[in-house]
Amino acid sequence: MQTKDALRVAVLGCGSVGSQVVRLLTEQADDLAMRAGVPLELAGVAVRRLDAPRDVEVPAHLLTTDATALVTSGVDLVVEVIGGIEPARSLILAALESGASVVTANKALLAEDGATLFEAAEKAGRDLYYEAAVAGAIPIIRPLRESLVGDTVTRVLGIVNGTTNYILDKMDSSGAGFADALGEAQELGYAEADPTADVEGFDAAAKAAILASLAFHTRVTAADVHREGISDVTAADVRSAADMGAVVKLLAICELRDGPDGQAVSARVHPAMIPRSHPLASVREAYNAVFVESRAAGRLMFYGPGAGGAPTASAVLGDLVTIARHHRAGTRGAGESAYTARPVLPMGETLTRYHVAIDVEDRAGVLALVATAFAEHGVSIQTVRQEGRGADAQLVVVSHRATDAQLAATVAHLQQMDIVREVTSVMRVEGETE
Amino acid sequence: MQTKDALRVAVLGCGSVGSQVVRLLTEQADDLAMRAGVPLELAGVAVRRLDAPRDVEVPAHLLTTDATALVTSGVDLVVEVIGGIEPARSLILAALESGASVVTANKALLAEDGATLFEAAEKAGRDLYYEAAVAGAIPIIRPLRESLVGDTVTRVLGIVNGTTNYILDKMDSSGAGFADALGEAQELGYAEADPTADVEGFDAAAKAAILASLAFHTRVTAADVHREGISDVTAADVRSAADMGAVVKLLAICELRDGPDGQAVSARVHPAMIPRSHPLASVREAYNAVFVESRAAGRLMFYGPGAGGAPTASAVLGDLVTIARHHRAGTRGAGESAYTARPVLPMGETLTRYHVAIDVEDRAGVLALVATAFAEHGVSIQTVRQEGRGADAQLVVVSHRATDAQLAATVAHLQQMDIVREVTSVMRVEGETE
Ligand SMILES: NC(=O)c1ccc[n+]([C@@H]2O[C@H](COP(=O)([O-])OP(=O)(O)OC[C@H]3O[C@@H](n4cnc5c(N)ncnc54)[C@H](OP(=O)(O)O)[C@@H]3O)[C@@H](O)[C@H]2O)c1
Ligand SMILES: NC(=O)c1ccc[n+]([C@@H]2O[C@H](COP(=O)([O-])OP(=O)(O)OC[C@H]3O[C@@H](n4cnc5c(N)ncnc54)[C@H](OP(=O)(O)O)[C@@H]3O)[C@@H](O)[C@H]2O)c1
Repeated sequence: MQTKDALRVAVLGCGSVGSQVVRLLTEQADDLAMRAGVPLELAGVAVRRLDAPRDVEVPAHLLTTDATALVTSGVDLVVEVIGGIEPARSLILAALESGASVVTANKALLAEDGATLFEAAEKAGRDLYYEAAVAGAIPIIRPLRESLVGDTVTRVLGIVNGTTNYILDKMDSSGAGFADALGEAQELGYAEADPTADVEGFDAAAKAAILASLAFHTRVTAADVHREGISDVTAADVRSAADMGAVVKLLAICELRDGPDGQAVSARVHPAMIPRSHPLASVREAYNAVFVESRAAGRLMFYGPGAGGAPTASAVLGDLVTIARHHRAGTRGAGESAYTARPVLPMGETLTRYHVAIDVEDRAGVLALVATAFAEHGVSIQTVRQEGRGADAQLVVVSHRATDAQLAATVAHLQQMDIVREVTSVMRVEGETE
Repeated sequence: MQTKDALRVAVLGCGSVGSQVVRLLTEQADDLAMRAGVPLELAGVAVRRLDAPRDVEVPAHLLTTDATALVTSGVDLVVEVIGGIEPARSLILAALESGASVVTANKALLAEDGATLFEAAEKAGRDLYYEAAVAGAIPIIRPLRESLVGDTVTRVLGIVNGTTNYILDKMDSSGAGFADALGEAQELGYAEADPTADVEGFDAAAKAAILASLAFHTRVTAADVHREGISDVTAADVRSAADMGAVVKLLAICELRDGPDGQAVSARVHPAMIPRSHPLASVREAYNAVFVESRAAGRLMFYGPGAGGAPTASAVLGDLVTIARHHRAGTRGAGESAYTARPVLPMGETLTRYHVAIDVEDRAGVLALVATAFAEHGVSIQTVRQEGRGADAQLVVVSHRATDAQLAATVAHLQQMDIVREVTSVMRVEGETE
C-alpha cells in the first residue's frame, strides 16, 4: 500500500547497518514523518540471499535480489549499505540518474571514486549524503560541510577506526603485545577474522581522504593518503610512550600547509604518540573521535561510537530526513565543494616529529655523536633521555618538527652508526599545536 | 558599491562577537563566496556609539545607530549580535517581516521568547539560525536539528558555561574556595565584574531551554528550567567529590521520561558530582562540552570553546553561508520542530541521586538510624562510607535514583535528627547511564 505523498525509500543491503535502518524506519515511522514533513515509506530492500536470517523482520514482498530494478523503479530515496566498490557504484549512479537522492555509508567507494558520484549527483540535481561513512554515529560530515563552512580548518586529527583503537587501548592498559591484543579483540567481536582492512589502516585511510576533501574544499582520494598500520607497534613502543606521558593511537591526520606555491594539503594514517593531556588520548576502547583545529573556532572535538549497526543507522536516518525535507521543498543541499583544487603533499614533505629510542654503546661522547647525526639532517632535538648502563644503555630522543624525509634520513643514518646497537622504537609524535 | 547578485548582510552589534563577524566577512570574502555560491556583501553595521573604538576597522559609511532602518533597507541577511531582549527582538521581527533571514547568538532571547521568533520566521518563509547561541563554536544545534533527527535523544548533559567551569576546575585542582576561584577568574577575564548571570546559572539555564526544545521536539523556556548556581559549592563539596572519584561540574541536564500519561521532559541546571571516568569530567578550564545520549547512536560528545569573539563568529558564519545557499536555491532550512508538545516535569518529579555528607554523633546504631531515615522516604542507599571518630565522625551516603522531592525530604529529615550534628554537603550525582 502506497501512502499518498509519501516518499518511497529503497534500502540496498540488509546486514549490520541495513537491518537497523529498516528497523528504525518502521518503528519510528510517525516521528520521522513529523520531522521530515512527509511520511517515509519503505519501498523495498535489496539483498544477496532472500532466505538469510535477518536482525529485522522484512515483509517478504519487499525483499528482492534485483537491486537495479529497485533503484530504477521510481523510488525517491535510496540508502546504499551494501559496501564495496561494485555493484554499489553502479547502483548509486543508476539511482541518481533515475532521479532519486542517495544516502550511503560506503567510505571505500567515496574515497576511491567520490568524484564520479558527486558529479552524477550534481548533474541529476539530487542529494548525495554520507554522514555514516566517517566515524559512524558521530556527526562530523555535517559540521565540516556546514557548521565550519565560514571558517578555515587547518588540521583534522581523527581516531576513526574502532578496531585499532581497541587494540592499542588494550596494549596500553595491560602491557599486552599486538598479537595478544588483536586476538582478544577478535574474540570479543571488535576485530574481524581477517583484520587487514582495519589493522593495516585501509579503513582509516579512506576516512582520511573523505575528511581532507571536506575540510580543505579539495579532492583527496585514498591513493593520496600515506598509510601505515599498527601491526608493527610493539609493547616497547607503548611503554616508551607511557614513559614520556604519551599514548599510542592510530591517527588519521589531515593538514593544510602554506607553501611557496600557495596552500597544499596532506593526509596520512599512521600510529603516533600523543600527550595524555590531549583530548584524543582519553578516547578508550572502540570509541572514535575527531579533533578539528580551525582559525576562528579553535580546537573542537567530536566523540562517539564509530561503528555498529544502530549507531551507523542513526547517522543514515539523519541524512534521510534532511533529504526528505529538501525533496518536499523542491530543493537540495550543498554539493561537493572542491573549488580550491589544492595539491596533495607527498609524505616526505609533511612536517612531523619523531620519537626515536636507540640502544647505544655505553661510552662517553655517544650523545654528542647522536646529536650530530640529527643536526646533519637539519633536524633539531627537543629532548633526550639517557637510560640504563652498559648493555642496557639507551637514548630516547624526541625531535622538533622537520619534514618526514629529513626525519627518515636521520633514522637511516643512526642505523648505520657504530655506536648504535639497535634502533628499538621509531614513532611520530603528534597532538601539539604549533 | 553593490556587487551584482551579492547577498547583502546587515550586522547588528559590533562588540566581541560582531567585530569578529565583520572581520571574517571581509577577510574571507572570496572563500565565503565560493562556498555560498554567491558573494556576501557587508551592507551595514549597527552600533550604539558611532565613535567607540572597535576591534575591526569598519568603513564609516557602513556604521549606523539606526538599526531599524538598516534591517528594513532591503538587506537579505541579518546577524543579530547585540544581545538582551529589546531591541534585539523587535529588530529580528522587523528583519523577518522585511524578508531577510536572521542569524542570532542571543540565547537569552531565544530561551525567553523563541516561539515568537520561530513563528515570525515561519510566517515570513525565512530562516532563523542560532548555532552560536549554545556552546559558542561547538556545532551542537545543527547535530541535534539534523544529524540526530532520525534518532530518539533521551538525555543531554552539558557543560555550557565557561566561567563556572573555569571556577570549578580551579577549585578542583587547587583546593581553593569559591570566592578565591571567582576572584582569579575575574582577574583573568574569564568572569565579568558582575558574575551573576554565569555564576547563578542564568546563562546555562537559557541554553538548557534551547537544548531541551531541540532534543525533544517540544517547547521549553528559561522559566521551565530548574536553576541552581555554584556560589554555594564549597571546598568541602569538591573534596568530598574527589574522595569518591568524582568531580563537581555545573551541568545543564535535559531528559526525556516515560510517564504514566506519556512522555515528559525535564530541564535543570545545577552543580553535580560526575565520575572522573565520564567524558565530561575531563573538560577543563573554560572549555564547554555537550554530551548526548540517544537510543540508536548511543553516547556522543561535542567539545570546544564555548565563548569568545572569534569562535562564536565562526558559528555565526557557518549559519550565514548555509542560509546564503538556501537563498540562492530559493528555499529554506527546517524550522522549529515542536510537534510533540511534551509537558515539562517539575523538579520534584525529576529522578536523580544525592550525595550527602553528615557529621554524626559517634555512637553505635547511628548508621542504622540514618539508613532508616532514607528508607522512610522510599530512597534506597547505594553506598555508605563511615569516616573519622569522636567529634569528627562522618557518614557519606550516596543514594540510588529517586525523585528529587523524596531526596530533598530525606535531607530535611536528617537535619532534624538528634544524632546528626550537621549535614555538611548535599549534592546531586549524575553521569551514569541507567
Ligand atoms: N557495520 C558498521 O559498523 C559500519 C559502520 C560505518 C559504515 N559502514 C558501511 O556500511 C556498509 C554496510 O556495512 P555492513 O556492516 O552493514 O555490511 P554487511 O553486514 O556485510 O551487509 C551487507 C549487505 O549487503 C547485501 N548485499 C551484498 N551484495 C549485494 C548485492 N550485490 N545486491 C544486493 N545486496 C547485496 C548483503 O546481503 P545478504 O544479507 O543477503 O548477504 C547484506 O545484507 C559498508 O559500506 C560499510 O563500510 C558499516
Ligand atoms: N561574547 C561571547 O563570547 C558570546 C558567545 C556566545 C554568544 N554570545 C551572544 O552574542 C551576543 C553579543 O555578545 P557580545 O559579547 O558580542 O556583546 P558586546 O560585546 O556587549 O557587544 C554588543 C554590541 O551591540 C551594540 N548595541 C547595543 N545596543 C544596541 C542598539 N540598541 N542598537 C545597535 N547596537 C547596539 C553595542 O554597540 P557599542 O559597541 O556601540 O556599544 C555593541 O557593539 C549576545 O547575545 C551574547 O549572548 C556571545
